[in-house]
Amino acid sequence: MISQKLVKKLADKKYRVETGLFFVEGRKSIFELLDSDFDIVAIYGTSDFILAIEKQLLSLKKEVAGVIQSCISVTEETLVKIGTLKSNNAGIAIAVQKKKVSLEHILDVAKTDIVLVLDDVHDPGNLGSIIRTADWFGVTHMVTSETTADLYNPKTIAATVGSFTRVSVTSLALSEFLESVREHGIPIMGALLDGKNIFDSKTAKHGVLVMGSESHGINDELKQYISDAVTIPRFGNAESLNVSVATAVLLAELRRVHI
Amino acid sequence: MISQKLVKKLADKKYRVETGLFFVEGRKSIFELLDSDFDIVAIYGTSDFILAIEKQLLSLKKEVAGVIQSCISVTEETLVKIGTLKSNNAGIAIAVQKKKVSLEHILDVAKTDIVLVLDDVHDPGNLGSIIRTADWFGVTHMVTSETTADLYNPKTIAATVGSFTRVSVTSLALSEFLESVREHGIPIMGALLDGKNIFDSKTAKHGVLVMGSESHGINDELKQYISDAVTIPRFGNAESLNVSVATAVLLAELRRVHI
Repeated sequence: MISQKLVKKLADKKYRVETGLFFVEGRKSIFELLDSDFDIVAIYGTSDFILAIEKQLLSLKKEVAGVIQSCISVTEETLVKIGTLKSNNAGIAIAVQKKKVSLEHILDVAKTDIVLVLDDVHDPGNLGSIIRTADWFGVTHMVTSETTADLYNPKTIAATVGSFTRVSVTSLALSEFLESVREHGIPIMGALLDGKNIFDSKTAKHGVLVMGSESHGINDELKQYISDAVTIPRFGNAESLNVSVATAVLLAELRRVHI
Repeated sequence: MISQKLVKKLADKKYRVETGLFFVEGRKSIFELLDSDFDIVAIYGTSDFILAIEKQLLSLKKEVAGVIQSCISVTEETLVKIGTLKSNNAGIAIAVQKKKVSLEHILDVAKTDIVLVLDDVHDPGNLGSIIRTADWFGVTHMVTSETTADLYNPKTIAATVGSFTRVSVTSLALSEFLESVREHGIPIMGALLDGKNIFDSKTAKHGVLVMGSESHGINDELKQYISDAVTIPRFGNAESLNVSVATAVLLAELRRVHI
């Protein structure tokens, strides 16, 4: 039994690391969780929402009993108290974090498709929005630096709007990772301000795409690994683009040219 | 003389409307403000930052005396107290809001270039990020529904990273506005989930591009005005894209095909 006190603690990375658990808030995200292969250990929800879960599981043709047994009926006030949302008329589900995907598997994916790599994206809202964008453009694997925001931060999970169930995000030491990518002869694209114009250069159909931090771009230490520096051409005067916006424009273009 | 008390009140839309003033926080944004044609009425800053302003004005070849006279030296603690940032080692500048751009002028722009229209974008962070993206892609005029977040909200201003000085944003009743656009025979593009694939359809070189709200897309009342419904093709499983991300992908594509 997961106590209300533990749920509240899971907003804190320290307790997420200690327990291997995390939580998901709100109707839409919990429905996506039910439809995924994440292990759910408990759901605090309003009694209406617990009925809705039962219906949803039936419509998904999933086994109902186990999940319903782990549901605990509480008031909306309790949900707000133990969670992070300002209002929550549905529930909070507690689930088990996924095991890390192996380096070998990620390299295999990068041999035929795009793997998105984030260096130092601190803002969980940006990370979540990027996961959602990756999901839209069919990117299934991401690698993040150890300094990037935590996938299981409640703000990240909320900003993915359910896409955290479909995109695998693995935190790795990026210089070692990119070293391996290079050894395997896989193209390493990177968003830099002085790269080739993405709109009229030949881009790789597969490989990794590295995006840097909100304020400093790609780390100097990592720049040496970039084999294809790319840039979104500027038509006006803004100094830079938000990292989640830049990622979206690049992924859209990579997909467009290789449809 | 603008009192500290009034500055604090300007975080509130009611007082911004009453006074016609707004504030800008932090080094980069204030430097962009100094380089713009906004009228600055006061700057609260650390003494170091006031020296930096003097230098900046000299390097911009701008008149120094007037602005420096309106500078008031305060501590970092005071800046945090009267502003909205968690830390601020630079300053807060109070400036006069711009006059509304006329409908005629906006229609003129839409006859040769893209005017971006936002319906119901509630989140000031999204609005700010969209203004920054518009600035990057050389879009100089935006129109927002009266239900969209306020341009002069401190969160919007911060998220534009200075682009609020270069992109004009006019709040209008959208159905009347789009009625006029249509009467002038100007193309009205709109982002809809069932529009034409933006990657392989002929898009207009000029006209207005309408983006809907984060959760409900373009209002039913406004859909009738859309002459060119466009969609970003989906390669994966996310249900939708963040509105600032979708705007960026569409603007990038409109610029790419008409370079």
